[in-house]
Amino acid sequence: MKRSKFLLFEKDIPSQWYNVAADLPFQLPPPIHPGTRKPLQPSDLSAIFPMALIKQEMSSRRWIDVPQEVWDIYRLWRPTPLKRALRLEKALKTTCRIYYKDESVSPTGSHKTNTSVPQAYYNKKEGIKRLTTETGAGQWGAALSFACNAFGLGCRVYMVKVSFHQKPFRRSLMHIWGSEVIASPSEETESGRAILKRDPHCQGSLGMAISEAVEEAAKNKDANYSLGSVLNHVLLHQTVIGLEVKKQMAMAGDKPDFLIACVGGGSNFGGFALPFVKDKLKNNKLKIIAVEPSACPTLTKGVYHYDFGDTASLTPLLKMFTLGHNFMPPGIHAGGLRYHGASPLISALCAHKIVDAVAVEQLDIFKAALLFAKSEGIVPAPESAHAIKVAIDVAKKERNKCVVFNLSGHGFLDLASYDKYLSGELQNYAHPVSEIKRALKQLPQV
Amino acid sequence: MKRSKFLLFEKDIPSQWYNVAADLPFQLPPPIHPGTRKPLQPSDLSAIFPMALIKQEMSSRRWIDVPQEVWDIYRLWRPTPLKRALRLEKALKTTCRIYYKDESVSPTGSHKTNTSVPQAYYNKKEGIKRLTTETGAGQWGAALSFACNAFGLGCRVYMVKVSFHQKPFRRSLMHIWGSEVIASPSEETESGRAILKRDPHCQGSLGMAISEAVEEAAKNKDANYSLGSVLNHVLLHQTVIGLEVKKQMAMAGDKPDFLIACVGGGSNFGGFALPFVKDKLKNNKLKIIAVEPSACPTLTKGVYHYDFGDTASLTPLLKMFTLGHNFMPPGIHAGGLRYHGASPLISALCAHKIVDAVAVEQLDIFKAALLFAKSEGIVPAPESAHAIKVAIDVAKKERNKCVVFNLSGHGFLDLASYDKYLSGELQNYAHPVSEIKRALKQLPQV
Repeated sequence: MKRSKFLLFEKDIPSQWYNVAADLPFQLPPPIHPGTRKPLQPSDLSAIFPMALIKQEMSSRRWIDVPQEVWDIYRLWRPTPLKRALRLEKALKTTCRIYYKDESVSPTGSHKTNTSVPQAYYNKKEGIKRLTTETGAGQWGAALSFACNAFGLGCRVYMVKVSFHQKPFRRSLMHIWGSEVIASPSEETESGRAILKRDPHCQGSLGMAISEAVEEAAKNKDANYSLGSVLNHVLLHQTVIGLEVKKQMAMAGDKPDFLIACVGGGSNFGGFALPFVKDKLKNNKLKIIAVEPSACPTLTKGVYHYDFGDTASLTPLLKMFTLGHNFMPPGIHAGGLRYHGASPLISALCAHKIVDAVAVEQLDIFKAALLFAKSEGIVPAPESAHAIKVAIDVAKKERNKCVVFNLSGHGFLDLASYDKYLSGELQNYAHPVSEIKRALKQLPQV
Repeated sequence: MKRSKFLLFEKDIPSQWYNVAADLPFQLPPPIHPGTRKPLQPSDLSAIFPMALIKQEMSSRRWIDVPQEVWDIYRLWRPTPLKRALRLEKALKTTCRIYYKDESVSPTGSHKTNTSVPQAYYNKKEGIKRLTTETGAGQWGAALSFACNAFGLGCRVYMVKVSFHQKPFRRSLMHIWGSEVIASPSEETESGRAILKRDPHCQGSLGMAISEAVEEAAKNKDANYSLGSVLNHVLLHQTVIGLEVKKQMAMAGDKPDFLIACVGGGSNFGGFALPFVKDKLKNNKLKIIAVEPSACPTLTKGVYHYDFGDTASLTPLLKMFTLGHNFMPPGIHAGGLRYHGASPLISALCAHKIVDAVAVEQLDIFKAALLFAKSEGIVPAPESAHAIKVAIDVAKKERNKCVVFNLSGHGFLDLASYDKYLSGELQNYAHPVSEIKRALKQLPQV
């Protein structure tokens, strides 16, 4: 009988993160200071990040130790299972072998806690008393709340106002772990008050929430800011995913031909795929596929250019695939993939053809999610369903290949979007061509 | 370093269920026919149950094989982890060792799929085309939907109307797995129509939903009825929990002094504790504790007497601890524990002092749940929090003891009740003394 699970022991939880910067066949373009337009210095970030994370952000050391205190919390849910999707294979009548890494088993139901825990740890160690962050649907806010609680840090989450009211359940998680959740735009910050003065009924956006969280951190010596994706140190922490997958594939006696994950900012994709970049450089037949929503086609329809990380143009300029920092994606239900840019690391790997990108439609990802829930029994997050959709496509097209994807999270807190899909209320979105053109015209000159 | 997880391999998933009837030091009182008032015959049940399950219900064989087709679905989430709650121990500053079996990792988030899968399997094998059942908050309806989908059976779930409208998310799960969900009372059945004629705005009850589901199954040759707790065969299927725990405690090199689980109908408690009954008979120092809500104190304030399983007096009479089949418990948030009776097996074990029962208050269980979520990272279902509360009490009081409890499910779909607790809207309930007295007056004569 074929095995369906590949489980590691506690001792197999990685004790080091893997830094792909040490093995890249190219130089990563540096971040640029938004004022001076010169390469960013570590000190430019010290008002909002602890030095340990700034160093990791700029490090080229291949292996970076996981602190014991972080490892000790990782083991509440790590190592996560690698599962063989035998029942999905059967449903597809495929000759391919399909595996998935199950990151949905974390306290908050997604991979996000892999980085929230070390971020909270390093801030605590450097004497910070509380963290600020932004959150849309709440996945990141919940993960940071869990981590801050574990280290006795305060946490203030600026949550986009429309989600604050419409998606109360990840807010409940944040409250359970003791965070303060503020509907953004708020009266708490200058930028919030300025927005509310212009439009008292403003429903908020991720860009506005970032501005509020960064402002609070920058103005308060005992507070720092925390980001859940995009940056190098975030992807670094996430490499525990791919490092475990490598061990588990060895247990399975199998080798990936296809590695597939979804991309919003790029953190679950990076964590899953970066430990395999060296394999790809040796064997170009290995395909590493980033999946994005066609409604927000950063990697497939964007340009590789310096841009701001936020809509308010406050962040450093990052060389990345971008749709323009003013691009406003349609309201797809994979909220975690509605980002105008992408991690500079992942963008560079795409630009150098080491990673392939593909965009898929909303209705197709829900169809794939349903097939997965019916065959494998896990209701996936809409974000993760992007990876499932492409894994299914590959398994249908190829013969005898090994297909591995990352299940970044479960859908227990996304069931309202399934209701909408099942009742026929969801739609695909035409490629937002004119919106992209308009936003790309406002790219900064570097 | 102390280990925090005890993981079994796929091959360790039990291939046989354990039937405690073979080892009881007493005769279990038989179920009684509601009409003739004579001991129930297998044929009395054949209109709504398949013969394989009726045989299991009445069997005294110690070990009953898990069919390969069932085992093959169990392994989607089984074996489940046994975890050492090191961080909870630290928070309590206890010298006790606390372990918990994590049944929250199933497709629907609770232990219920352990029995829904074999129930669907045996019905399919005997030519049944669809199952009917009732559900309150939806935990059982979701589990049966998952199982029916796996075997290509139709499934009609009568869901208590007030929950149908107020708790839409487990309904979403049922829809994902292809079930039809009907708000009860409905126009679909005679009993539903009769209720609606008397009261068109009736919000329904579990008793009414049972009547509708049983009626539909009894009237249709190709349909059977399925129950998620109380009966012997349901507890039999759940023994996979305790059988795994035994192996895992051996891995841990430890032996339970206290075994703790919550009781509604008794299925998670039975599945967890029944494999340890023989140990208790040999060593009376082992404490097996059933935890119930003080708002529905069946085992601690009820009487051990024959009673109906439903409010409409349609089911066989079962000898059990009961508050009277007309008892209406207050609206506590542990919906799965709001049952007037308890499994005849568990009731007999309580009557014979093999199992101890304790009742706890709503505010205390949420306080315990929060401490657990903050230390161990899992937000528990309010039902499971009853076990956590007593495990904490024991660990605070005892020294150097081994405390093991069953985490029957997670709380991702119960976050609204956490919101109410955190905002101070929840309350305890006085022991419903007069309501119990009134209901006990209506016990049937046997």
